[in-house]
Amino acid sequence: MTYPTSLGVSTTTQITLLGQDLADDLIGSVGFGELAFWLVTLQRPTPQQTRVFEACLVALADHGFTPTAIAARLTYLSAPDALQGALAAGLLGGGSRFLGVTEDTGAFLADAVTKARAAGTLPEGDGDAAWDALAADAVRARAAAGGKVPGLGHHLHKQGDPRVPRLYAVAQEEGQVGPHLRLFAAVGRVARETLGKDLPLNGAGAVGAALADLGLPVELLRGFALLARTAGLLGQLAEEVRRPIAGRIFAAVEGAAEYLPPEGA
Amino acid sequence: MTYPTSLGVSTTTQITLLGQDLADDLIGSVGFGELAFWLVTLQRPTPQQTRVFEACLVALADHGFTPTAIAARLTYLSAPDALQGALAAGLLGGGSRFLGVTEDTGAFLADAVTKARAAGTLPEGDGDAAWDALAADAVRARAAAGGKVPGLGHHLHKQGDPRVPRLYAVAQEEGQVGPHLRLFAAVGRVARETLGKDLPLNGAGAVGAALADLGLPVELLRGFALLARTAGLLGQLAEEVRRPIAGRIFAAVEGAAEYLPPEGA
Amino acid sequence: MTYPTSLGVSTTTQITLLGQDLADDLIGSVGFGELAFWLVTLQRPTPQQTRVFEACLVALADHGFTPTAIAARLTYLSAPDALQGALAAGLLGGGSRFLGVTEDTGAFLADAVTKARAAGTLPEGDGDAAWDALAADAVRARAAAGGKVPGLGHHLHKQGDPRVPRLYAVAQEEGQVGPHLRLFAAVGRVARETLGKDLPLNGAGAVGAALADLGLPVELLRGFALLARTAGLLGQLAEEVRRPIAGRIFAAVEGAAEYLPPEGA
Amino acid sequence: MTYPTSLGVSTTTQITLLGQDLADDLIGSVGFGELAFWLVTLQRPTPQQTRVFEACLVALADHGFTPTAIAARLTYLSAPDALQGALAAGLLGGGSRFLGVTEDTGAFLADAVTKARAAGTLPEGDGDAAWDALAADAVRARAAAGGKVPGLGHHLHKQGDPRVPRLYAVAQEEGQVGPHLRLFAAVGRVARETLGKDLPLNGAGAVGAALADLGLPVELLRGFALLARTAGLLGQLAEEVRRPIAGRIFAAVEGAAEYLPPEGA
Repeated sequence: MTYPTSLGVSTTTQITLLGQDLADDLIGSVGFGELAFWLVTLQRPTPQQTRVFEACLVALADHGFTPTAIAARLTYLSAPDALQGALAAGLLGGGSRFLGVTEDTGAFLADAVTKARAAGTLPEGDGDAAWDALAADAVRARAAAGGKVPGLGHHLHKQGDPRVPRLYAVAQEEGQVGPHLRLFAAVGRVARETLGKDLPLNGAGAVGAALADLGLPVELLRGFALLARTAGLLGQLAEEVRRPIAGRIFAAVEGAAEYLPPEGA
Repeated sequence: MTYPTSLGVSTTTQITLLGQDLADDLIGSVGFGELAFWLVTLQRPTPQQTRVFEACLVALADHGFTPTAIAARLTYLSAPDALQGALAAGLLGGGSRFLGVTEDTGAFLADAVTKARAAGTLPEGDGDAAWDALAADAVRARAAAGGKVPGLGHHLHKQGDPRVPRLYAVAQEEGQVGPHLRLFAAVGRVARETLGKDLPLNGAGAVGAALADLGLPVELLRGFALLARTAGLLGQLAEEVRRPIAGRIFAAVEGAAEYLPPEGA
Repeated sequence: MTYPTSLGVSTTTQITLLGQDLADDLIGSVGFGELAFWLVTLQRPTPQQTRVFEACLVALADHGFTPTAIAARLTYLSAPDALQGALAAGLLGGGSRFLGVTEDTGAFLADAVTKARAAGTLPEGDGDAAWDALAADAVRARAAAGGKVPGLGHHLHKQGDPRVPRLYAVAQEEGQVGPHLRLFAAVGRVARETLGKDLPLNGAGAVGAALADLGLPVELLRGFALLARTAGLLGQLAEEVRRPIAGRIFAAVEGAAEYLPPEGA
Repeated sequence: MTYPTSLGVSTTTQITLLGQDLADDLIGSVGFGELAFWLVTLQRPTPQQTRVFEACLVALADHGFTPTAIAARLTYLSAPDALQGALAAGLLGGGSRFLGVTEDTGAFLADAVTKARAAGTLPEGDGDAAWDALAADAVRARAAAGGKVPGLGHHLHKQGDPRVPRLYAVAQEEGQVGPHLRLFAAVGRVARETLGKDLPLNGAGAVGAALADLGLPVELLRGFALLARTAGLLGQLAEEVRRPIAGRIFAAVEGAAEYLPPEGA
């Protein structure tokens, strides 16, 4: 029985990764983001793809005192001897609500793009009208099914998430705007009319669209959000080491505890 | 009460990170590895530092079917709906034995460098003899205290870890060889004589030395190994999605189970 | 601002939990399973409920070399200094496929029971025919929606999971057989006819039915499976300490690695 | 190659656990705490041991809004679809500072007891004076080595932890007071004189002493604290489902964020 792999394989004298000699071909020759892309897709990204990919990671890396950052800091407070546990605790919040937006948006867009392509109705080129029609259909179908359209709205940036136009500009500069980013922009244009609410596109959603256009597997997009967040959590933990606040957060919560008898007790 | 931070802060219209405007100054302008370095140190690395830093991350990203990679795959098999859990499970193996070598080596070297600097006995320049003397002292002291000298030996690469010379070459090219890398090289030269065993330097240790020379906080070096490994684990999980093996690993272990009565039962 | 809680609250001289004095009323006076039930429901279980509840936990505690047990052991191999990480890694496999069956079955049954109760069609008493009709409806509706009926089938116990009849017997003895267990038994009787396949009831599903009959919140049933599994994982880790096997599992997988070039490379 | 185990082994028709038939001998016949003890030690505890063991688990189960409870709630807020992740995040705080006290105390006492037994100087019986001398030696040796004596002091219960006398009473009732509990009591008596500070015994430490007297492996004592805490975290998460507070904790922290420029920037 063998276990096939295209990733790392070692002999006593050589380490290969992706079929490359790790020492001779990779260390010092490829960037870290470039390698992460390559590890997942098995294809070395172009410099243009790498720049958009790293822009996405930078966009998601840290967002201040998120629940995941606070959870990581509190875990470090309790178990400072196991940094890996604090990091893992922070990543475990990377589920449906916070980091999941990236993946959900990518999946929503990819589904609409795939269906339109199969039906021969995928718009060609940049014309807004055709994309708007496709977007309106997809948004209405999702809403009719009782679902939420991912990538819209932000609890803070109600007038627009500043990351969105910048991500589009970078993708444009690098020639990486494809059907997912086009459709996402159209979702933003039709959202008010089709949903009756003013919900701007958010950055996590734009990242999902951009990553899908880069050809990354949609079912793993959450993983890139987690990779980006790992860097952010490291920053949070380094700051916690330098100037701790988790103990004060703990004390504030503990001090505000109020016993409430169970109903019916 | 306020919680100070130098990382991410948002207003309704702006996201700043490290005092920079995330959209205008960072997305598309800094690389991902560069940002990770900056988030931890609060100082933007030079291009030279960035290249060595990313070389270190690349060196540690994946090493094939490590225990952590297998644990991540098995967790994904059990809970495919929560990718974050599979990644976290993989990172939780980043403790003392595997990924910990990087941190332990950095700490061992930093301790010797700090003491020598305080005593005014830190060698200047490249002369091997002075570094060898310092290394021999540090190795003997550690061995006398019953401790293990970290960064020496590899379960597979018994004749030398191919990552080591390449990491030195990259650091040399970028002018980033400092006291930690010099001392680590000296440890390699004196190991046989002082320990009576032929133990070559390993790549995880060289990364620890290089990261310490970059000025990264020694108590967080494990974190960089974890960041690197996150990319590798993503690659492992992407491969598990494409061509699953965890089910066969599980079956092989389960099928080889043999009941053994407790002693004395 | 206060944070209300009905669980633990401490003053300098007293610890209360669930409104009880921890020292005077709980330690030495309530069992551990009893307390776990109480903590979740805010109601102290009767001795009859406690016996069925602990029978469920015992049924799920350990099942040998599951993927979660192997992941925990491998994590302990890599990071023996952080037992909490090895336990957490094992629990992270408690998702949809393995431990999730308990929760999915409870939810499936509770949904059918709730709807029938609302419609006034919930069978009264034990008569099999009425329960069979309800079960057939629920199974057909789930199959028609393309879903899987949870709690049926086991990769090993194809002729019947021995835990199932025993759990029913214990629930019967304690007067704790309610609509969920009755419906689950009916699902087992109608499965072959409605699904065209012979799939016996499994133990994880029976536990889900029993826990739902105990009035435990259906959306948290997975949590009890995780609690049970924590004890099992502790046993696995204690055995790993006594007689390690993770290193051999790692070596077997690593030794069977075979490099496979990426398609198209 | 086989992997030996004394825990769970399954055939198509039978599940055995600890050499017992799971269905016939364990489900409904052993309690959950009893099984947890058995799984770790491979020996079925007596009813007396079981009562003390469960008293220890009850003592540690929940302590209100600890950092671990808050981390679990915040993780659930971010990723409500993966309960296992929230539980795991809570457990990952079970390291050196909070839950680790149990293990550290057990190890400290076991070390002193083992050495005294080897030297033939372990006191026999209950006489306080001999135990006080042994305790004073151990405390002084630890303090001289720059270490902290574990099990002393509590951030809240400065006048004494109410769990301590109750745990002693239960152990006394069940005839389970052995050398570790005796020595721990003596540590409490001599602490002021030897350390010059008034530090009462804490509950986590008393649990460590009691578990060591039950013959549980000292290097795994943290595991029992984690098992106990799993029940408490389930209670915390059930309360978070019923009456969420994590969103308010997040908002309070985020709202108090204040940007602080990096030093030297």
